[in-house]
Amino acid sequence: MVFPIPDETEQKALYAELCQKAQWHRDQGRKIVIVQGLGFVGFAVAAVIANATDSSGHPLYFVIGVELPTADSYWKVGKLNDGLTPIVSPDPELPRLIHESVHERKNLYGTVSEQAYSLADIIVVDVPLDVIGRSVQKPEDIQIDIESFKAAVKVIGRFMRHDALVLIETTVPFGTCEQIASPILKEERLQRGISNPFYLAHAYERVMPGPNYVDSIRLFWRNFAGIDKASTEKAREFLASFIDTDSYPLCELESTVSSELAKLLENSYRAVNIAFIHEWTLLAEQAGINLFAVIDSIRVRKGTHDNIRFPGFGVGGYCLTKDSLLAQWAASNLFETDVVLGMTMDALNINYKMPLHTFDLLDKLAVGGLKGKTIAVCGISYLPEIPDTRNSPTELLVKELLKAGANVVIYDPCISKWPEMQDIPLAQNMSSCLEQAEGIVFTIPHKVFLELSPKTLLDSVPSPPFIVDAQNILSDDKANFLHDHGCQLFGVGKGHWRKLGYQWKKQKDGVY
Amino acid sequence: MVFPIPDETEQKALYAELCQKAQWHRDQGRKIVIVQGLGFVGFAVAAVIANATDSSGHPLYFVIGVELPTADSYWKVGKLNDGLTPIVSPDPELPRLIHESVHERKNLYGTVSEQAYSLADIIVVDVPLDVIGRSVQKPEDIQIDIESFKAAVKVIGRFMRHDALVLIETTVPFGTCEQIASPILKEERLQRGISNPFYLAHAYERVMPGPNYVDSIRLFWRNFAGIDKASTEKAREFLASFIDTDSYPLCELESTVSSELAKLLENSYRAVNIAFIHEWTLLAEQAGINLFAVIDSIRVRKGTHDNIRFPGFGVGGYCLTKDSLLAQWAASNLFETDVVLGMTMDALNINYKMPLHTFDLLDKLAVGGLKGKTIAVCGISYLPEIPDTRNSPTELLVKELLKAGANVVIYDPCISKWPEMQDIPLAQNMSSCLEQAEGIVFTIPHKVFLELSPKTLLDSVPSPPFIVDAQNILSDDKANFLHDHGCQLFGVGKGHWRKLGYQWKKQKDGVY
Repeated sequence: MVFPIPDETEQKALYAELCQKAQWHRDQGRKIVIVQGLGFVGFAVAAVIANATDSSGHPLYFVIGVELPTADSYWKVGKLNDGLTPIVSPDPELPRLIHESVHERKNLYGTVSEQAYSLADIIVVDVPLDVIGRSVQKPEDIQIDIESFKAAVKVIGRFMRHDALVLIETTVPFGTCEQIASPILKEERLQRGISNPFYLAHAYERVMPGPNYVDSIRLFWRNFAGIDKASTEKAREFLASFIDTDSYPLCELESTVSSELAKLLENSYRAVNIAFIHEWTLLAEQAGINLFAVIDSIRVRKGTHDNIRFPGFGVGGYCLTKDSLLAQWAASNLFETDVVLGMTMDALNINYKMPLHTFDLLDKLAVGGLKGKTIAVCGISYLPEIPDTRNSPTELLVKELLKAGANVVIYDPCISKWPEMQDIPLAQNMSSCLEQAEGIVFTIPHKVFLELSPKTLLDSVPSPPFIVDAQNILSDDKANFLHDHGCQLFGVGKGHWRKLGYQWKKQKDGVY
Repeated sequence: MVFPIPDETEQKALYAELCQKAQWHRDQGRKIVIVQGLGFVGFAVAAVIANATDSSGHPLYFVIGVELPTADSYWKVGKLNDGLTPIVSPDPELPRLIHESVHERKNLYGTVSEQAYSLADIIVVDVPLDVIGRSVQKPEDIQIDIESFKAAVKVIGRFMRHDALVLIETTVPFGTCEQIASPILKEERLQRGISNPFYLAHAYERVMPGPNYVDSIRLFWRNFAGIDKASTEKAREFLASFIDTDSYPLCELESTVSSELAKLLENSYRAVNIAFIHEWTLLAEQAGINLFAVIDSIRVRKGTHDNIRFPGFGVGGYCLTKDSLLAQWAASNLFETDVVLGMTMDALNINYKMPLHTFDLLDKLAVGGLKGKTIAVCGISYLPEIPDTRNSPTELLVKELLKAGANVVIYDPCISKWPEMQDIPLAQNMSSCLEQAEGIVFTIPHKVFLELSPKTLLDSVPSPPFIVDAQNILSDDKANFLHDHGCQLFGVGKGHWRKLGYQWKKQKDGVY
């Protein structure tokens, strides 16, 4: 489907139409909400807000999604106005909500008109704020794309109604509301002759891509804070209108700085715990230990140890791969502290490089080296069953394999196009992925890989391949069966598989 | 109470008596269990095992606690035989169990006779295995006191019955059972002409000093593994006889190496998470953020984020301060891997140095410097309400204060003697601790500190002091009251207290 970007005249006509719609909804007693940015978060948030109703079931809002009139972005507006989700999700609730909002309630609409901001009672900011390069190691090397974010806030200041609430949901460096957004809004409004205080708050989302996409917005805990009391109260009222605050009471923090930092801290906590297990993974492999069993035995300690992570292939996605960098950037640049988040920065680096360990295991198993060998890479997305390739750790593995001269054949049942690696052809199914494979690597526990029988695998390959299981996909039974039939295997965190493949050096006393 | 070490003749007589006791219990159908080492773990484990009964309530075991005949250790034997706990504990169950076992069931007895091992069906090893120096930073600098551990195993091998089970509970470098204990037992037995295989297993305790000391042994999860199938089964049967395995099923790991590593990993996990929060604590303080409130708001995410740690003063105790070093030592020395547990080692160092941050805060608040100032240090023990000073972080703080020329007055309601710092006199009560105080630091949340009213505090000091709250002891209300009455305050992780004391530099735009 192609959505041609409307020209200026068309935009004018569309905007006039939008104003009429907005007026009609306003006449029904509804408020106008703008969601700025229709990415992975914004379009879902827009759908949830459009679905909010009063006690008699009448919609509370007319929701306008605003995107940029660029080739990269406009298609999202086009899709939304056709009642379709811009992003594929395994949550059936998402397309249902969008379809109903667009075609039945008619209270969800996309536009590229900047003037639309002037219609809004509430403006929700869900634009990206990305880092430039995720493999940096020193605080001073962190660069973030703050300019696009500033531009997004600027356009709001230029058009917003004097009494609208601006609610930032974007994950930002802590201090952004006070030190970046607030001065911009102030200045833009002053230029328009508006000097009264504005309403600005931060309330970060905890959206989880996956089967509970929608519920991770409306049925989940939410932290928030305003830059002043009035902003806080406006934000509280708005959030409570679409979140089930009976089950998940809102948590008001002391300042927007605290709210901004909380998001960065919770994702850094996760990233650090993943990196921590990786160093013990390397140890367990060399010491012949099944780290999965060990961790299972530790996780029984509920409340203190039950979220210790498992070994894995790597970390992908938009958040865990960058949020710590936003924190360090803010520490150095917005607050001018001398704090170095050393363990946190180390963790991000360990996680970034983690796929190289899987590459090493493949390299160890490839008799005569990887050069010229055909390697089947099973999995691109960074979460099971989710068609999301952003910062997928498979990217680094594939680049390394290509650098080593291997032929790479890639298959992922959820991915038909790999936006970040468009030159790489993808296999259409499992059997075409395996038909030439001399080595196989499993990088994500998609159901189709978990359910693959060793017999089918062996029937699909020209001769018994070497196999690296980077995500605990093969059971010990399956691995033993494959080894009995000529395969050499190893698995990330599976030290007890040493007898099935690469032999680490024997220890002095014969224990290896 | 003084317990004179028996001389050789006395020991012989005592041993003869012990043999009679053992025979009597054996005639009742009971097995003989030896617990080697009556330290913080051993004496409690001995009490729990002596308390194990069959379905009709009859004791299953005669338990003999063995200690060394040295001035440092013999008193534990003396105390035990008087029916007293060698170590003070807030768990009333512990003295009750020991009293009953010694005086009523008469199935618990202490000795220094090495021949006692020859009586045992089961020998439980609870001797210490300590590191020498906890502030090392490089893997190659780690030294452990493996020789005393080897000596302890050797004496078992020299005297043990050929078919006894040796169960190691001591936290050891992974690989110890296979690579250290097993060869020693083999050789010692061979010298005695015993060549049949022996039974050796590892089953680490998760004893928690505190009000549930006893239950942390018998009502808690237990990991274990034997060096072979027969050892595993013997260990399983024994453990199940004193642990409530209906509620806490035993978890058998694949090897003693896995069991040994699991203990080191679970404590390292904890240590890393404490260190991680410390770097964010420094950040929050400078950025003016109340990190306690932020972490409260993150911990609502049950199952994924609910055990993120809080800011604090430091890490003490026997385990968290050293277990990661045992792991790195084993990685380098027993398994000869090239793995460096980088984040784990960093964490131990951060935790070790953590009290220096509290020192810095005191130094910042002390107008004109700390030299000559009288500082009241409130808290020595490393856990609230627990009389345990081992590796207390207060030690480093006090040393640093003395180095800076401060007069230090120390008070801890649980501690009347500080074994690690015997030259330091302790105040007998809160008021004598405060009567000269120009500065006050709270290092552990004992009830008496939590309940101290600001008015009482102000009445106890000559003039309003500066105060550092290193353990979230003072509420915001109390802190504000104290500040209103002339105190300067700051708290670890309490960035929002900046207005009450030390002023971090103002940021460029006036936000500080």
